[in-house]
Amino acid sequence: MKEVIVELGERSYPILIGSGLLSERELIRSLIPARQVMVVTNETVGPLYSAQLCDHIKDREIREVRLPDGEAYKTLASFETLMSALLEARFERGCCIVALGGGVIGDLAGFAAACYQRGVEFVQMPTTLLAQVDSSVGGKTAVNHPLGKNMIGAFHQPRAVIADLDTLRTLPSLELSAGLAEIIKYGLIDDGEFFVWLESNLERVMAGDVEATTFAVERSCRDKARIVALDEREGGVRALLNLGHTFGHGIEHALGYGEWLHGEAVAAGMCMAARMSARLGLMSPTDARRAETLIARAGLPTSAPTGITPADMLAAMQLDKKNRGGRIRLVLMRSCGDSFLTDDYPVEVLMETLGATESPAGG
Amino acid sequence: MKEVIVELGERSYPILIGSGLLSERELIRSLIPARQVMVVTNETVGPLYSAQLCDHIKDREIREVRLPDGEAYKTLASFETLMSALLEARFERGCCIVALGGGVIGDLAGFAAACYQRGVEFVQMPTTLLAQVDSSVGGKTAVNHPLGKNMIGAFHQPRAVIADLDTLRTLPSLELSAGLAEIIKYGLIDDGEFFVWLESNLERVMAGDVEATTFAVERSCRDKARIVALDEREGGVRALLNLGHTFGHGIEHALGYGEWLHGEAVAAGMCMAARMSARLGLMSPTDARRAETLIARAGLPTSAPTGITPADMLAAMQLDKKNRGGRIRLVLMRSCGDSFLTDDYPVEVLMETLGATESPAGG
Repeated sequence: MKEVIVELGERSYPILIGSGLLSERELIRSLIPARQVMVVTNETVGPLYSAQLCDHIKDREIREVRLPDGEAYKTLASFETLMSALLEARFERGCCIVALGGGVIGDLAGFAAACYQRGVEFVQMPTTLLAQVDSSVGGKTAVNHPLGKNMIGAFHQPRAVIADLDTLRTLPSLELSAGLAEIIKYGLIDDGEFFVWLESNLERVMAGDVEATTFAVERSCRDKARIVALDEREGGVRALLNLGHTFGHGIEHALGYGEWLHGEAVAAGMCMAARMSARLGLMSPTDARRAETLIARAGLPTSAPTGITPADMLAAMQLDKKNRGGRIRLVLMRSCGDSFLTDDYPVEVLMETLGATESPAGG
Repeated sequence: MKEVIVELGERSYPILIGSGLLSERELIRSLIPARQVMVVTNETVGPLYSAQLCDHIKDREIREVRLPDGEAYKTLASFETLMSALLEARFERGCCIVALGGGVIGDLAGFAAACYQRGVEFVQMPTTLLAQVDSSVGGKTAVNHPLGKNMIGAFHQPRAVIADLDTLRTLPSLELSAGLAEIIKYGLIDDGEFFVWLESNLERVMAGDVEATTFAVERSCRDKARIVALDEREGGVRALLNLGHTFGHGIEHALGYGEWLHGEAVAAGMCMAARMSARLGLMSPTDARRAETLIARAGLPTSAPTGITPADMLAAMQLDKKNRGGRIRLVLMRSCGDSFLTDDYPVEVLMETLGATESPAGG
C-alpha cells in the first residue's frame, strides 16, 4: 500500500493506494470512526462493493443511497435527495458521508458533505481510474446546472481517500482511457520525468499491471497534491490543472454532455492546447506531436469530433470559471512538462485551433 | 461611523455601522469593486433601497433578484433561482453577490455566494436589527429543509457588512424586539457589563436613539466577533451563541415555523435556559429574574406559547446541530454574563422546564 499525504494544514489527509484495500476491515474502520455513516453509491458500483463495506462497519448506524449511474444524476435534485435522506435518518453533524463510486458520486456526495449542517466528514472510495487520480485530490465538489457543468459546488476536503486498484478490473476500457487522459495531463503540466515514464510504460498500465498502475496513480496524486497544496482555493497555480479542460468543456458543451466521456474531451482538449502552443511558437512541433502520440496510444481522441462548430465551442469556453474580464484564459505549454496560464494570445489563433481538425505538427 | 473588524486571518472583514451609510456612494463603490454585481433582495426592502444602491454602481453589470418576503422562501428552490439567474447572466467567478435585506436574504444570498462556482464575493447590507447584530457576523449561510431549519448551508465570510441604522426606522416594532433578543443574548453569554448597560438603556434603543443604537449594534457585533474569531467553524466556544436557540428551535418546530419570529422563540428560549439554570442551582433566582425582566421589557415573550407539548419541543431539540451521541446539548448560565455548554444534566429537569410555563424564580 502506498500513501500520499495531501498537505493542507489542519485539512491534510491521506490517499491510500493499493490492491484489495476495500477488504481490509481494520483499515476501513479506522478511517471511518463516525457512529452514523451514509454510503452514497450508484447502481453499477453499489452491488459490487457496498455489502462488504457495510459489513466492516456493521456496528454503526448505516444508511445507503444508491443513485442511477451517470453524469445526468449529478444534479441539485440528487443533492436534495441526499439532504432528505440524511435528515430523515436524523443524522447529526458528527456523521460521515462515504462516496463509493466514480467522479459523479464523489463530486455529489462531497457537495452533500460540504453543505449538510454546514459541513460533515467525508471519505472517498473512488472506483474509477479518473476518480482515483483526479477527484480524490483537492476537495473540489460540485453538481451540474443545465447551463453549466460543476457550476454549483464547494471546496470540502475529505478525511481520507481509499483507492483500491482492484476496482479498476471491472472498468470498461474507455473509462480506463479517460483516467489515462488525466494521468498524461500531470506529466504535461510540470512533470516531464513522469511524461517520459509514461512514454515507456503506458501499455503496462493499460494491461492492469499492478506495479505500474500503483506507480502511475501514486505519482499522479503526488503531482496534483503538490499543486493543490500551493493553492487550495484555485487563486493561481492550481488553474494549471485545467490543461485541456477549457477546450474540453467546449467540446462537451457543443457536442452535448454525455456524448463523450469527460476524459475523452480533455484528451482532445490537451491536443488542441498543444497544437495552439505550437502555432504560437511556444512549443516545438516535435513536443506537440509527442503529446498527441501518447494520448492516441491511450485510446483517446486527439481532435474535436467532426460536425461541431468553433462558435459553439467558443460559447462554452466563455463560461469557464477561470475567465476574468470576459477573456478566455487557457493553459498552454512550452514543452511536455512545462505549462502556464495565459489570456495573452491573438484570438485568431484560438479560432484557427478550434476550426482545425488537423495537427500542424502532424502535417 | 463605527467599524468592527471580524478577525479571521485572511478572511477578516469590516462591519461598518452608522446612519445613512447606504447613501454614501464612494463607500459603497469601494466595498464592491466587482465588475458584475448580483443584488439579492425581497419585495419589501427592494423598493426602498435597491434603486439608490444600483445607482451608486451603475457603471457595473448589475442583475437583481427580488424574492417574495419571508422565511418560507429560504429554500433550495430559491437557491436554484439564484444559480439560474447568475448563469443566465454569465456571471464569472469574480462577481459579487450583495444581500440587501434581513436574515433570510443574507442567509440565502450568502449560501448562493458560497456555492456559485465554488465561492464568489459577498457583501451584506442587513436592513433589520436582527440581521445587523446576528447574521452579519460569523459567515453562517443556509437554507431551510422541510425537515429542519438551516440544515443546508456553508461557512462563507462576506467581504464587508454595511449596517445602515436608518433602515431600522421602517422596521415593525416586533422585528425590532426580535433583534433585541439577540442583543440581550450577547450580554447574557459573557458580557455582564453590556447586560447592565442594557438594563439602563434598553428603552433608548427601542425609541431609535442613534447613539444608543449604534453602541448596542457595535457592542453586539464585537461580542459575537470575539467568539467567532476563537472558533470559526463552531467546534467549541461558538456554540455559546446558541443560548436560547435550542429551546427556541423546539418552540418554533412545535408551533410551526413562521408563527413566531425567530427572535421571539429565542427570547422565550433564553428565559427557559435561565429557569432551568436556576432549577439546577447553577444561577441565582435573582439573576434568572433579571434576565426574564429585561426580555419582557424588550416586548418579548418569556415562556413558550400555551398549547404546545414538551414532547413536541423535545423532538425538535433532538435534531439540533450541537447534539453529539444523541444527547441534547444546552447553553446554560451561572449568571447574567456567564454561560457554558453542557449535556450533563438530569433529563427530568429538562422535561420540567419544558412543561412549566411559570418561572420558579418568579413564584
